[in-house]
Amino acid sequence: MNRRVTLAARPQGFPTESDFALDEVGVPGPGSGEVLVRVRYASIDPYQRGRMSEARSYAQPLEIGDVITSQSVGEVVESSDARFTPGELVVGQLGWQEYALARGGSLRRLPPGLEPPTLALHVLGATGLTAYFGLFDVGRPRAGDTVVVSGAAGAVGQIAGQLAKLAGCRIVGIAGGPEKARDLTELYRYDVAIDYKNEDVLEALRGEHVDMYFDNVGGGISQAVHRRLNIGARVVICGQVSQYNEPRPEPSFHPGLLIVFRARMEGFLINDYRHRFDEGVARLARWVANGDLRWQEDVTDGLENAPRGFIGMLNGANRGKALVKVG
Amino acid sequence: MNRRVTLAARPQGFPTESDFALDEVGVPGPGSGEVLVRVRYASIDPYQRGRMSEARSYAQPLEIGDVITSQSVGEVVESSDARFTPGELVVGQLGWQEYALARGGSLRRLPPGLEPPTLALHVLGATGLTAYFGLFDVGRPRAGDTVVVSGAAGAVGQIAGQLAKLAGCRIVGIAGGPEKARDLTELYRYDVAIDYKNEDVLEALRGEHVDMYFDNVGGGISQAVHRRLNIGARVVICGQVSQYNEPRPEPSFHPGLLIVFRARMEGFLINDYRHRFDEGVARLARWVANGDLRWQEDVTDGLENAPRGFIGMLNGANRGKALVKVG
Repeated sequence: MNRRVTLAARPQGFPTESDFALDEVGVPGPGSGEVLVRVRYASIDPYQRGRMSEARSYAQPLEIGDVITSQSVGEVVESSDARFTPGELVVGQLGWQEYALARGGSLRRLPPGLEPPTLALHVLGATGLTAYFGLFDVGRPRAGDTVVVSGAAGAVGQIAGQLAKLAGCRIVGIAGGPEKARDLTELYRYDVAIDYKNEDVLEALRGEHVDMYFDNVGGGISQAVHRRLNIGARVVICGQVSQYNEPRPEPSFHPGLLIVFRARMEGFLINDYRHRFDEGVARLARWVANGDLRWQEDVTDGLENAPRGFIGMLNGANRGKALVKVG
Repeated sequence: MNRRVTLAARPQGFPTESDFALDEVGVPGPGSGEVLVRVRYASIDPYQRGRMSEARSYAQPLEIGDVITSQSVGEVVESSDARFTPGELVVGQLGWQEYALARGGSLRRLPPGLEPPTLALHVLGATGLTAYFGLFDVGRPRAGDTVVVSGAAGAVGQIAGQLAKLAGCRIVGIAGGPEKARDLTELYRYDVAIDYKNEDVLEALRGEHVDMYFDNVGGGISQAVHRRLNIGARVVICGQVSQYNEPRPEPSFHPGLLIVFRARMEGFLINDYRHRFDEGVARLARWVANGDLRWQEDVTDGLENAPRGFIGMLNGANRGKALVKVG
């Protein structure tokens, strides 16, 4: 049987565990071109909150009863695609479930010996690639820039900051709580850490001239950073997690600021860089091998606990990339 | 004697005529490197409102008693700069006054025979260059794009739309009142005109996929356009005239929209393109000579009426570039 976590109800504001259901259905056999995968680890990410809302965004919303979508890593069990053989580890959009069917073309094989294989769900996967393309292609760092990252200890933020550091920038991270703030400077090599739960961000940024702001959170934290922009600043809109549980996101930005600072604010989606994933993974893998990129995982044990892990992540309880270990 | 319009009081909200004073002082002689100019026409522009506020922006605010800054065209009366001789027409930041002293290096000589010479204050001057660099360098039009311009009948908007048309775009203009809307399609070659005073902008844009939005106004009109952006849209922040009389501009934008549309919003200031003014003027002059660029002037007669012309422009009463004929 296949255990799955599905959407039981659309969350009203902040999600609760009753918005999710655990069910069991038969394990299907792969049709032509399909691959059956036994999931080992599934990803927990802020963007999943958006899929649970009815509002159309860049992706179709989930329907009630749908398996929660996620990137997952698993082992091929049965394959009707000649490119995959049983026992191989793959990553793909496999969801929060024990077994998943996928078209072979939608899967990527993990490099043999990748240890831990969960790297394919973060540093060498979606969140690492998000940091890579957002920072380099959208933000375009120049050595000597001051780069501020919000959600700096999160899955994307921890990598974005380190990439900016590798590009010769001075990096300032904003995160919630003293433990995360300590991670920023001690683990992720941030030059300055701001704990927004215990510091006034605007005050903490006094004297800073922010050349790039890599924004994962939006809301009031971002409003403070906007007031410290430098001439020619770039604001990379990667996420707005503070807004994801709002029924209607609050306008928080006055576009006239972009005139004052001759600044650019730009959003992006990682899927638009699909044709360059190999480039990104290759570079990230080199930095990982060198020891130049550090990361942390925050693993929830058991598929049935995925909703709790998800809610904890939205609350900022995780340290590092949130994952669920399946089965 | 030199008659001048000065700042009598900082406007509270919308300016009134009592915020300005008319005075007379002696005409100064030029010091070394200086040129004395008799002003013929002075420009009236929305950005002047910003200079009247105490808040520091990209430029220093005016002090009480200062002559209102403006681009003006005039005739050299006396010169201590060997590059200029009496009788020549020049343009520079000469202000709302009859006589102005300027450093020779800050003046540009008008091409001989330029008719009317006021072209140097709009199509071949600051507003034309603003449209040129904003549209081409910031907005980067591609043939086939749908380009929406707000303040489309204004001094910058009328040129920005026509430049987008020359670049092969479909152009949609937003302006206030039926006369301006008629100008858009009949004079400035807009494909679609929207009269925001008599139409719902969001509704009028139904079915449009906006590839570039050239924004002169901000506020509610812009909020409607933002909801019609296309994937990959560029939003050029040229001005935010709807906000200039607000004590504190209202946040009107949710940056998360830039993720949904993978869009870019960017502000600019024309002074940053100073090193390329010759390029811009040369191209604009060719289009003017070809008859490819049309314009309208709205001339207020008499320096003493400049404040009234300014207030009228902020109210949208002008049709075309607002100027004051001095003396």
